[in-house]
Amino acid sequence: MSVNENASVHGLIVQLPLDSVNRIDNELITNGVSPEKDVDGCVVSYGSCDLNDCFIPCTPNGCMELIRQTGVSVAGKHAVVIGRSKIVGAPMHDLLLWNHATVTTCHSKTPDLPEQVTVGRAEILVVGAGRAEMVRGEWVKEGAVVIDCGINYIADETKASGKRVVGDVHYASAKERAGFITPVPGGVGPMTVAMLMEVILFSLLLIRTPLQRARRHRT
Amino acid sequence: MSVNENASVHGLIVQLPLDSVNRIDNELITNGVSPEKDVDGCVVSYGSCDLNDCFIPCTPNGCMELIRQTGVSVAGKHAVVIGRSKIVGAPMHDLLLWNHATVTTCHSKTPDLPEQVTVGRAEILVVGAGRAEMVRGEWVKEGAVVIDCGINYIADETKASGKRVVGDVHYASAKERAGFITPVPGGVGPMTVAMLMEVILFSLLLIRTPLQRARRHRT
Repeated sequence: MSVNENASVHGLIVQLPLDSVNRIDNELITNGVSPEKDVDGCVVSYGSCDLNDCFIPCTPNGCMELIRQTGVSVAGKHAVVIGRSKIVGAPMHDLLLWNHATVTTCHSKTPDLPEQVTVGRAEILVVGAGRAEMVRGEWVKEGAVVIDCGINYIADETKASGKRVVGDVHYASAKERAGFITPVPGGVGPMTVAMLMEVILFSLLLIRTPLQRARRHRT
Repeated sequence: MSVNENASVHGLIVQLPLDSVNRIDNELITNGVSPEKDVDGCVVSYGSCDLNDCFIPCTPNGCMELIRQTGVSVAGKHAVVIGRSKIVGAPMHDLLLWNHATVTTCHSKTPDLPEQVTVGRAEILVVGAGRAEMVRGEWVKEGAVVIDCGINYIADETKASGKRVVGDVHYASAKERAGFITPVPGGVGPMTVAMLMEVILFSLLLIRTPLQRARRHRT
């Protein structure tokens, strides 16, 4: 692609989902992005690069930054990730694990999500399930760090648009138990954008000064 | 490497660990193997390929086959993987997850391994921790499928060699509770070799008939 070769462009992302009446091969498109400009970390799935020579997808990178800012140490904690998508759940699992959390990945086939022994054990809970307000306050462990990556529209007659945005966590009840919790909107979303900006700047520096892409983004 | 170009060779593995008085860059060596001949699935770490265009590392592939042969369905089960290595723990997590298990990865930093709520919940338990007989019978859930990837040498004066091989699971006590359990030696090891042979045959067929490397190895 000509953008790959354009030296004045330092980052290139494919905004998913690719919406069309025709079937589009997401992987074919995302793999077309030059790895040097892949600021969203999508060229190959995350597992292949060990953080040494690739960018980390912006949403999980932002989630780790949010967790860091709570001051809660990840090492030795029980972390639960709900969702196993390539852009949120899967890299989130890897990041938490590499930071020495014990990580459980739950998903739509998990039979007992609300039970104490599953989500209720999580000292760190990251949710990217795509289901409006599915995580209820009573599922949340007292004092947990709750990071909500969900973006869902639900009907709301009080709004001019007739709808509003909510996360995957039922915020009002979850905040009564969580030690730290991100709202939707205004939580993970802005942090994702901030991470994207940071990575683009980093990419610019890398392209200008061909350092080894390095531990800068290790968390 | 000349072996990569040799049309009469259909599989090439790097036997790890690379033992030397000098430091060897494992990744540099394993990445030198042509992906078409990478029958041990090590050229890039596993996450990048989605099983569509790469081989699955033989040990986790063999573990999945062993689990399949028990007749126990993976979907919806709680699975625990102890260990997070690239050749066992990490791909094992992915395979179990993609087969719809809820997967917890435990490791040396997990604070409460023996507790009921961690290992004791596992309906499927895969251990690749590298610590002789660390998993005790009392940790194991009644009826669980226990797959032991460990190979450890412990002192045994009754043997001419003065040592014997044991797994990461204390077999004698664990078999009293497990529904299915693999011994060491004679469990995962031979299955790994069998998988390697199967993959080499598959590689030969692929090289001879350039089909798309396909779902054959999806589990």
